[in-house]
Parts: sequence; structure tokens; C-alpha cells
Amino acid sequence: MPDFFIEFATPKDVDSIVQMIRDLAEFEKMPEHCHVTPEHIRRAVFEERLVRVIMARSRDDEGNVDTAGFALFFYNFSTWTGVKGLHLEDLFVRPEYRGRGLGRSMLRHLAKLANDEGCQRFEWNVLDWNVNAIALYESFGATLLHDWRICRLDGPALKAYGSIKE
Amino acid sequence: MPDFFIEFATPKDVDSIVQMIRDLAEFEKMPEHCHVTPEHIRRAVFEERLVRVIMARSRDDEGNVDTAGFALFFYNFSTWTGVKGLHLEDLFVRPEYRGRGLGRSMLRHLAKLANDEGCQRFEWNVLDWNVNAIALYESFGATLLHDWRICRLDGPALKAYGSIKE
Repeated sequence: MPDFFIEFATPKDVDSIVQMIRDLAEFEKMPEHCHVTPEHIRRAVFEERLVRVIMARSRDDEGNVDTAGFALFFYNFSTWTGVKGLHLEDLFVRPEYRGRGLGRSMLRHLAKLANDEGCQRFEWNVLDWNVNAIALYESFGATLLHDWRICRLDGPALKAYGSIKE
Repeated sequence: MPDFFIEFATPKDVDSIVQMIRDLAEFEKMPEHCHVTPEHIRRAVFEERLVRVIMARSRDDEGNVDTAGFALFFYNFSTWTGVKGLHLEDLFVRPEYRGRGLGRSMLRHLAKLANDEGCQRFEWNVLDWNVNAIALYESFGATLLHDWRICRLDGPALKAYGSIKE
């Protein structure tokens, strides 16, 4: 029986992280929107330190270690609490490692990190049709903000709006 | 006639920022959720540099400068674009300065900053009942992400979930 552990990613994990991001975009039915490259991840995680990544690892009886999943997160800020929060951007468990509670282990790991670092909130986004995920999140006390919507300006509209002269 | 300009906040603006955050929480009908203090803002903006703040100022014919509004933002990250985005957390114009396009000026200022810094997205959250704001945002090309919900774990539930032993 393999055992599992969680640790922070190292630069050797970059290609594996990118592959899992692409696999997650497939699952979310929007692979055409995923333009991430290894260079993006290397820069954001290990150079600019915009984001952090934890890796779920499996170790078999012979001591061989394999990557089972990952979670990528960064810090946000609330003007109501006055302190930073932990925003989980992506969490993924590779298909062959599902059904063993690894997703929940990573969520608990991040909740503990949030507590340890004084974050008042731990947040992520969920698609409203992903009812199994929502039921899981609600089972441990998370709440959906039903009346808030994310508003996004990107692509040509962002370029244009940022170019208007006063 | 006063003229208006936008600049980054300085440590002298901390009390004014806190007052406007509280005024905004009143407008959002949730003042009891707003626990921010000047020390929170001083630390987040000028010490830990978790967030940035721009101030809208008015200058009258005699050269007197008054604060007309503010916007507080930080950077997020998308695993689809692979680069950072600009997340606007709060934007507020004081009542006596409304109706002169100051909110739009701050949004354009931030869109320009996002472009200049290579952000692929400029995002913020909006209450779904705030139809006037939504109409404004859509008028310059922003889109609402209708099927995404924010999921939040906080308070005693976060403390409890982060304390579960494996």
C-alpha cells in the first residue's frame, strides 16, 4: 500500500504542474482557454513568488515517489477583516490517485496553513454545476457567496479601456 | 471649478482610507462585517505591501486638495493565462464628489496600470442586485462570470477544519 504526503513544490516539479493544469482545464471543459507554459510557472512560483504550490506525493513499498496531485494558491486581502486571506486557485488529483481522500488532505493542509499564517479566510471559486464539489465543501463548513459575481475585463476590451485618454 | 487627479496613497492617507472603507460597508448594507483598523491598512499597504491604494483628489481654485475617493487592489494569478492579473477589491467615491466620472476615472487608471504591467485580466466582484454598476461595467466590455461562485471557509469552521489531525 502506498502512503501519501504533502510538501511544497520545487523547480523540478514545473513540467508536472503544467501538465496537471492542462488536465484540469480539460476536466473543466475549457482546454482551449489554457495557455500556461513551464516558463510562466517557473517565473510565478520560483522567481516572482506571486503564488505557491503544494504537491501531493505517493510513496510505494519500494520507496518510489510519484506525484499524485497539486494545489496552487496565493494571498488576497479583505478590507472587512483587514488581513490577508488564502485564495486557492487550482487543486487537482491525478485520475489514478482519486478516491483516497487526497483532495481533502490538500484542503486541510491549506486550511492549517491559513490558520498558522493568521489568514481570516480561505477562499476558492467553484462552478455552480459542480454539485459534488459544492456538497463536499459545504460538508466541512464552507459557504457559497450566492449574490456575488466575478466581473472580468480582459483581451481587447482591457487593452482598449486602458488606452482611453482623459 | 475643482480639478481632479489620481495618485498612489501615502501613509498620511491611512485614516481617510479606513473611513471610506467603513462608508462603503454601510453602502453595501453590511457595516457590522467591517472590522478594519488604521493599523491593518498601514501594515498591508506600506509594510507588507500586500495591496496597493490609489487616491482620487480634488483641487479647488485656491489650490486646496481634498480626498474624493480611493481604490484598493492587489494581484491575483490565473493558471490559464499563466500571468498575474489585477484584482480590484474596493472602489469608493465620497458622496459629495459623485456624478463627475471619478469612479470611471479610477477604473480607467487601473486598466491602464494593468496593461502597463502585463496583466491579462482586470477583475473585481459585484453584488448581483447592483444593476447600475453592472450596466456600467458591461458598457466598457467587462463580462460577468455567471456560473462561477466564490466559496469561503472562515471563522470557527476554518479554525476547526485546519485543526483536524490526519
